[in-house]
Amino acid sequence: MPLDNPFYTPEAQGPYELHSIGRFELEDGGVIPDLELAVATFGALNEAKDNAILIPTWFSGTHQTWADVYIGEGRALDPSRYFIVVVNQIGNGLSTSPHTTDDPSIAMSQFPHARIGDDVRAQEQLLREVFGIERLALVVGGSMGAQQTYEWADRFPDTVLRAAPIAGTAQVTPHDVLFTTTLMEAITSDPGFNDGEYASHTEVADGLRRHADIWAIMGLSTEFWKTEFWRGVTVEGASWDTFEEFQERFVAGLFQLMDPNALLHMGWKWARGDVARLTDGDLAAALGRITAKTFVMPIDEDMFFPVRDCLAEQQLVPGSELRVLPSIAGHFGLFGFEQTYLDAVDANLSELLATDV
Amino acid sequence: MPLDNPFYTPEAQGPYELHSIGRFELEDGGVIPDLELAVATFGALNEAKDNAILIPTWFSGTHQTWADVYIGEGRALDPSRYFIVVVNQIGNGLSTSPHTTDDPSIAMSQFPHARIGDDVRAQEQLLREVFGIERLALVVGGSMGAQQTYEWADRFPDTVLRAAPIAGTAQVTPHDVLFTTTLMEAITSDPGFNDGEYASHTEVADGLRRHADIWAIMGLSTEFWKTEFWRGVTVEGASWDTFEEFQERFVAGLFQLMDPNALLHMGWKWARGDVARLTDGDLAAALGRITAKTFVMPIDEDMFFPVRDCLAEQQLVPGSELRVLPSIAGHFGLFGFEQTYLDAVDANLSELLATDV
Repeated sequence: MPLDNPFYTPEAQGPYELHSIGRFELEDGGVIPDLELAVATFGALNEAKDNAILIPTWFSGTHQTWADVYIGEGRALDPSRYFIVVVNQIGNGLSTSPHTTDDPSIAMSQFPHARIGDDVRAQEQLLREVFGIERLALVVGGSMGAQQTYEWADRFPDTVLRAAPIAGTAQVTPHDVLFTTTLMEAITSDPGFNDGEYASHTEVADGLRRHADIWAIMGLSTEFWKTEFWRGVTVEGASWDTFEEFQERFVAGLFQLMDPNALLHMGWKWARGDVARLTDGDLAAALGRITAKTFVMPIDEDMFFPVRDCLAEQQLVPGSELRVLPSIAGHFGLFGFEQTYLDAVDANLSELLATDV
Repeated sequence: MPLDNPFYTPEAQGPYELHSIGRFELEDGGVIPDLELAVATFGALNEAKDNAILIPTWFSGTHQTWADVYIGEGRALDPSRYFIVVVNQIGNGLSTSPHTTDDPSIAMSQFPHARIGDDVRAQEQLLREVFGIERLALVVGGSMGAQQTYEWADRFPDTVLRAAPIAGTAQVTPHDVLFTTTLMEAITSDPGFNDGEYASHTEVADGLRRHADIWAIMGLSTEFWKTEFWRGVTVEGASWDTFEEFQERFVAGLFQLMDPNALLHMGWKWARGDVARLTDGDLAAALGRITAKTFVMPIDEDMFFPVRDCLAEQQLVPGSELRVLPSIAGHFGLFGFEQTYLDAVDANLSELLATDV
């Protein structure tokens, strides 16, 4: 029976629709008997069907931040010009996920592993079958969304005209593998996790809290904390007097709402993202055959997708450009705390969208 | 009864002597009835007693790395010229520590909190009473040793002629507090920890392992892992074929030898290091009154004592200089994996020691 978790509802995340793409066979051998993708759309598809933008989601995230922070009239991601489709990744808590299914063959600890490539194949099928889209003006995503963006550009070069991977890499790094391992251990070591068979995510509150504490030291930069940048971060009117309170209420507060199996599923996937799987391990070959016009957009203070890692990949993508985004928040700059960051994203995406391809 | 742990022996750590400085009252109100400091010395004190160098130790460390990697004839820390005294910090497993005492008032979970200032006062008493030293040619330490170095220069300006804090700060940062909290949670959340009353450190193996995994993503840089720098790191002939094996055998292997209560004691102390405690919270005042000739020496790839944090403090120390050390390893560059790093340390310390004061 699906678990009740109010975080994964339209009330919490904003409206979305579920689209079934049927039985879906996964790269690693598992099967999702009826894969439903949670999709939020903005704007309208034009008759030529050439104004579509796809946005895949990041670890622990949904379409929400994109809807609230990145998409809007007058912005680069302008729903009055583009048909913007945000697809929640498999297992993120909104699309078919360990805690949402009543199919015992895939529920909770039985949920099969999906890979970045599975998400991309599922999204391609969805766009084609549900919306009739076979050309994308842009694929843009942050973090695990960047992994999917690279995978899209590599798997479907005829479909993807432009690509903007933000704060993420095409090939996972060893540090990323260690980082995700450490994040996952925080959850699985909680006795309440019960090998994935908890009755409520609240039974794993301690593990989720420790998971969040690791995010706080790696997802947010040393400078974010040092300068007390959090004083300017308000959420629904809430503010905080100390950094401990911000950590407790904002970071830990957010992650403790989430489903442990969903996080583990996404963490497993993140740690294995690698476009070179498509070219027998040859990263240069995988990136070298990308034809989309690509802006590689790392965040300057990112502690685990440092600019140099993104630069090394950018140099392998023909005709691509490096566009470094400024955010004192580091990786969590993706939340869009700063207008300067959002302006930089918009300027780069606008320029990219205006580029003839 | 003291716990048996072969890591904290002369066989494992190299020779040292225990010196009692008697009953020691701690800043936070606790008392160590008979404080023994574990001390390793190199070279001889001259008649003028003006050739002494003091080295306080870092988190989880002992005198060993200093003896093996930093001290040697022809080096800056040359025992043929200087009398070098390495004092293991209170509670580090060699000096009086939770698991080494048979005094039930301070054993295991009962061990009282010590602060950086307590270590510095205890070291000053030791140097004076045991060795008759009232002037130090240099105090040099890394990480928590840097915290003690700053505290020394601030508390005993007439004693400290020169100071070299390496890869550490005078005032703990918010990120450091969050980092140490996260490290400690990894240990205390292990059911085997049993509120500090385990019968052997091996009962806390899982927690120590998770603690080590957090170190691997923060103590070593993204670039250390990316470039596979670990292939060149050998320990007693051992080497490794994958980064997972290096993490398992080197990083986790090392931390799993340690005593959980010792780590917790040091972590508590680290998270509260702040010379501004001596000047009513005024950091500029505390650093502004330092008279020692000071070289502030951050490591360029340090993920949690970034150069800019060290620079901000250096600018408050009169007559000081910033000397950035190169190490791809990040904070764990302190282990001295690279000859280029060691050469830079030696060049700077030699220059500092040659400076008239």
